[in-house]
Amino acid sequence: MKKTHIIGLGLLGGSFALALRKVKPELIFTGFDANPKNLEDALALGIISKASEQPDPDTDLIVLATPVNTLEELLLKMLDQVGPNTLVMDFGSTKENLCKAASKHPKRAQYLAGHPIAGTEYSGPKAAKSDLLDKKVFIICEMELTDVHLKGMAYDVLEALNMKLRFMDAAEHDRHLAFVSHLSHVSSFMLGKTVLDKMEDEKNIFDMAGSGFASTVRLAKSSADMWGPILEENKSNILEALSLYIANLSKFRDKIIEEDYEGLKSEMSKTNKIGDILDLGR
Amino acid sequence: MKKTHIIGLGLLGGSFALALRKVKPELIFTGFDANPKNLEDALALGIISKASEQPDPDTDLIVLATPVNTLEELLLKMLDQVGPNTLVMDFGSTKENLCKAASKHPKRAQYLAGHPIAGTEYSGPKAAKSDLLDKKVFIICEMELTDVHLKGMAYDVLEALNMKLRFMDAAEHDRHLAFVSHLSHVSSFMLGKTVLDKMEDEKNIFDMAGSGFASTVRLAKSSADMWGPILEENKSNILEALSLYIANLSKFRDKIIEEDYEGLKSEMSKTNKIGDILDLGR
Repeated sequence: MKKTHIIGLGLLGGSFALALRKVKPELIFTGFDANPKNLEDALALGIISKASEQPDPDTDLIVLATPVNTLEELLLKMLDQVGPNTLVMDFGSTKENLCKAASKHPKRAQYLAGHPIAGTEYSGPKAAKSDLLDKKVFIICEMELTDVHLKGMAYDVLEALNMKLRFMDAAEHDRHLAFVSHLSHVSSFMLGKTVLDKMEDEKNIFDMAGSGFASTVRLAKSSADMWGPILEENKSNILEALSLYIANLSKFRDKIIEEDYEGLKSEMSKTNKIGDILDLGR
Repeated sequence: MKKTHIIGLGLLGGSFALALRKVKPELIFTGFDANPKNLEDALALGIISKASEQPDPDTDLIVLATPVNTLEELLLKMLDQVGPNTLVMDFGSTKENLCKAASKHPKRAQYLAGHPIAGTEYSGPKAAKSDLLDKKVFIICEMELTDVHLKGMAYDVLEALNMKLRFMDAAEHDRHLAFVSHLSHVSSFMLGKTVLDKMEDEKNIFDMAGSGFASTVRLAKSSADMWGPILEENKSNILEALSLYIANLSKFRDKIIEEDYEGLKSEMSKTNKIGDILDLGR
């Protein structure tokens, strides 16, 4: 393996390149970003050494790390043009539609559907960090449809980055992600909006908000350009998660109105369990 | 100043004692907790050196750091019995009802209504940390009703702990806190519940949840015994905040249903501002 091409040089694409360069210093990184400023920053930061919209023919691995609404067109275009020894892998947060789009392509075996469970509320090449992916989960969908040699190369790379591989059905992936990731972003954005709408004096928000508020509202700093397309791609699952969330909030509100404080305490105590699950082994 | 008595030896009461002991090592700390295990832990951890339900007559400062539903009775009882040189200060997350309850007491001038904007999702003496209050905001309500010498002593103590004093009307405090703290807890608890209800396989939650989910759901680990009473004390403000939050979530859901992706992006972009406000000067 000698050459990697990364399209989308933001937080995830950039962090992947920085991490991979550390463990494989001999690798050549080329890449592209539709935003000229990102492309310039990625070159300056050493994320890539050559800017090029098209990967060189001897590229082993092409990584697509652009917003999810651009992935289908980009993936099909890349598959159309790659030689037999190149693997195309994506980092999209939604997988079902993309896997469907790829399913009829004659070079489907040269695609690996991936999703690194990593990120921060920041975006762009300057937010990239070589340890962002370290010890994180990398979900792979439809692994059985990828060529065994090509996916072997990808597994080697991901394991060299200390990532933990998990395999999952694409539809199941999207359904779960709506609950454990996409819903969190919606809840955080709307929490931020509710506070901004109500509290006109920003000084009060700043003074009175503790670390708890900062934590719950952190994701409201996320990029709208990235999250708009995720809401679109995973619409039905997100609507299900959001409707259940609104229903739970409404039932909680009813209990406050009814002054059912024992019921409220019981709901909160039961939910403390989520802490144990997340702390498990971390 | 030589003696401080702390009632409620949990996260806040314990952290206050540990911090104050560092800057004033000559001080004697006595205290009490209705939970015998907490009392034992607080002695073992050096939070207090003597367990006693009643403060000694020569106590300078009595701190009430118990759940908000216990504060009214405790405050009035303490005011009834203290001598003229003792200040009683509370750390409750709600202030309006407590200030009202204290308003007719003949020793009202010996009470300082306080609220340190600090905490974690953990509770009990073992969660106490000497740096929890460092550089945090301490809100004081109705400062004009407290005796000038006694409040001078309190300000000295709080400033020695590096706390930043802010002064506010009690009703205004409760209204704002409903938005920047209490609502976050409700949103976090219900987010945790929604995920727990839906995802039966805990392994999936653990594998697929990134740091974003962990951040938004962190407060769902909070103590139900502490938060039940806050929901009760600040009922009307929390209902207002929660209703606005549910309305915002419902409007966001409508936009997803209508596929108004430009509208969704615009909502998210506008809300990014909350990040700037919270980062300001931190």
